[in-house]
Amino acid sequence: MPTEAHADVDAELHELLADGDVAHLQHWLAEHPPHVIADELARADEVHSVLLFRLLQKDEAVEVFEELDPGDQQKILNGLREPAFHDIVEEMDPDDRARLLGEAPAHFTQRVLSGLSPHERRLTAELLGYDQDAVGRWMSPETVLLKEHTTVAEALARVRAVGADAETVYTLPVVDAQRGLTGVVALRDLVLADPAQQLTDLVDTECVRVKATDSAESAARLMQEANLLDLPVVDSEERVVGLLTIDDALEVIEAADTEDFARQSAAQPLEGHYLAAGVFKIARSRIVWLFLLIVAATLTAKVLQAFEGELEEVTQLAVFIPLLVGTGGNVGAQAATGAVRALAVGELRPSDVFKIAWRECRVGFLLGVGLGAVGFVLATIMTNKDIALTVSFSLVAICAWAAVVGASMPLLAKRLGIDPAVISAPLVTTLVDATGLIIYFLIARTVLGLG
Amino acid sequence: MPTEAHADVDAELHELLADGDVAHLQHWLAEHPPHVIADELARADEVHSVLLFRLLQKDEAVEVFEELDPGDQQKILNGLREPAFHDIVEEMDPDDRARLLGEAPAHFTQRVLSGLSPHERRLTAELLGYDQDAVGRWMSPETVLLKEHTTVAEALARVRAVGADAETVYTLPVVDAQRGLTGVVALRDLVLADPAQQLTDLVDTECVRVKATDSAESAARLMQEANLLDLPVVDSEERVVGLLTIDDALEVIEAADTEDFARQSAAQPLEGHYLAAGVFKIARSRIVWLFLLIVAATLTAKVLQAFEGELEEVTQLAVFIPLLVGTGGNVGAQAATGAVRALAVGELRPSDVFKIAWRECRVGFLLGVGLGAVGFVLATIMTNKDIALTVSFSLVAICAWAAVVGASMPLLAKRLGIDPAVISAPLVTTLVDATGLIIYFLIARTVLGLG
Repeated sequence: MPTEAHADVDAELHELLADGDVAHLQHWLAEHPPHVIADELARADEVHSVLLFRLLQKDEAVEVFEELDPGDQQKILNGLREPAFHDIVEEMDPDDRARLLGEAPAHFTQRVLSGLSPHERRLTAELLGYDQDAVGRWMSPETVLLKEHTTVAEALARVRAVGADAETVYTLPVVDAQRGLTGVVALRDLVLADPAQQLTDLVDTECVRVKATDSAESAARLMQEANLLDLPVVDSEERVVGLLTIDDALEVIEAADTEDFARQSAAQPLEGHYLAAGVFKIARSRIVWLFLLIVAATLTAKVLQAFEGELEEVTQLAVFIPLLVGTGGNVGAQAATGAVRALAVGELRPSDVFKIAWRECRVGFLLGVGLGAVGFVLATIMTNKDIALTVSFSLVAICAWAAVVGASMPLLAKRLGIDPAVISAPLVTTLVDATGLIIYFLIARTVLGLG
Repeated sequence: MPTEAHADVDAELHELLADGDVAHLQHWLAEHPPHVIADELARADEVHSVLLFRLLQKDEAVEVFEELDPGDQQKILNGLREPAFHDIVEEMDPDDRARLLGEAPAHFTQRVLSGLSPHERRLTAELLGYDQDAVGRWMSPETVLLKEHTTVAEALARVRAVGADAETVYTLPVVDAQRGLTGVVALRDLVLADPAQQLTDLVDTECVRVKATDSAESAARLMQEANLLDLPVVDSEERVVGLLTIDDALEVIEAADTEDFARQSAAQPLEGHYLAAGVFKIARSRIVWLFLLIVAATLTAKVLQAFEGELEEVTQLAVFIPLLVGTGGNVGAQAATGAVRALAVGELRPSDVFKIAWRECRVGFLLGVGLGAVGFVLATIMTNKDIALTVSFSLVAICAWAAVVGASMPLLAKRLGIDPAVISAPLVTTLVDATGLIIYFLIARTVLGLG
């Protein structure tokens, strides 16, 4: 087994697909682990991915299928005939199925649900009642529940009896007669304990829990902070409805970070595999913000029109406009990104806004002094000392201002209940540009004695 | 236990600290879980954090301590006297200790290592031999190894005998006589199996493994893709040296994403808690890129100087400069961020560069046509039809160009062995600005008949 699982597998595979070489394709499939195969299916077009999928052994097909994103799962399922279709759907974990259905058109949902056993259908429907971003969508309802007043030996016997169907047996919720959560036991503690011991000695009654309607991202970050393998999920009456397992939490965090990355560059997050997205889909994910930003950018044009007299008098002032607005934008973007990330991982709260604004003001001033010195030298070489002075004074003021605006806006957004990640670098840049130009021309008037 | 663990705990705590109210502080500490307390310690200054830490019960102190970042751990340890200092250090997991030492000054390392038992010291030193970003720094060397030819009952007995000291017992590496990895067994399978069964029936011999010198981030992402709880770590002779557990993998991923976020805004990642960083430390993390970018931005000034004749002839051309370079920068930033993220999560490989460049060229062209139409309307209202035509033609060309540059650069960086995340939005923007201006003025010459 190679340690580097991803080393150019696709070149070989493409050749086999082009040749339609079934025997070698089957050999290739047998040699690669499910996540690698899933990755290739996601990258391939519909015809090839369905072809490859049908060549898989049934057990492996299920494993590969579970590794796929909902969009890719639909791509495969659409290409399968009824018996194969239902075999796959029936074998999926209920939470994965709910996620697949959450994004599918209604007739597709119909086709999936109609093929399920009553038990499987109930589990999926239960999960489907929750919001897109709720813990309920990601939790595993198939858990092993233990009763409070048993011995370790009895508890282990119960794990053996019903554990095969559960998604995890490493964290075992302990419940009272009404299915209310009283605590959790780790399988590790059960295995290491004396079989005759009472379960109550091992139960962690202080365990963290979340509601099924809570945000999946917060729950996942909580698991990371508190180093939990599984997090019990309860309903509004504190009854256990499932467990959020760490592999699902990891997926939640990766998806949230991917979304934040996209938002930070003023794009909508793309669903599905990056390579599978078409030109129009990508353009659609980017155009909305670009429209808003270009309209906002007319503010810069308005400001420059207002100072057209100064520009005509000293054309050289125009030479440094991109440098000044660019630097202001960079400083603002750095401050904004730092604040957005600190909010996302829980290191910062909206109430910190004044503390942060003051700190960033000083940081921006320091940066401005450093950059102003560089700007002075560069501008002196290129033009004259008066313009150089204007440029460097402007840099100090613009950097301090940009840092304050960049760091405060995500905090204010959060206060207003808006996702702080929409305060993207391009948004901050655009807003800082216009004010930066005003600062520049006001300083130019004073230094150069214009107007 | 409240589900929302973070609701403004600090206001209450600050009051207690200000009053020096020890009884209530102890009560507060008893009522909050370790990760919440750790969060407050990280946010507090040195005096208050050491005060709070000394009020903790010993067992809880260890738990809280392990939740802290290395920087914060040093802050606390520096304030403790010898016996308390060594108690804490001895109780830490070896991998956490190695991380603490990796970032500490030498005399601090000395003080830590000298207090350890020989066994603990060996474990820590072993971990310390690996690179900052290597799996070896994050793995847990304390694992339960099983021999190949045993029964399930014998294996479970071994887990019971030595499992208490291991960081995890959920994944059990199976080794040959030379400690070479032959596969892994899940504790779940052991518990659910017939005790008389042979272990070999349960061993997954196809399991993924990584070398201790491999990148921790790749290993963590591999665990996420393959849904692994623990990943066996081997040395160059395939002997087991530890396990990478999923809670550590999650930390690796969060740290890597935080680093990528910072890099994407052209800042160095900050170490430690966001609020604990001082003004100079933050400024230092941002200034290097800003210097490079402002020097690169003089290119834009040079371009504008070259076209000063055109600017003097039609001053109104200057009015749209920030709008054009801003829009080009935005399109480039979106493309770059998408590519950087797709590379980080493994959806994209450097060899995809031509495919991506061609796709982005079409995306950029589409965006340019949409934005060019908006730009035409806006510029017609503000100036005249000729300038509006210049602006909208320029938008089409600049958007297509910016998208290609933005998406290709991270892939080229990866090919050259550079972290693609350094291809930040500000860097792309700065590089696209100068070429964008050239495009603008060349189009202006043709449309307006200048020069």
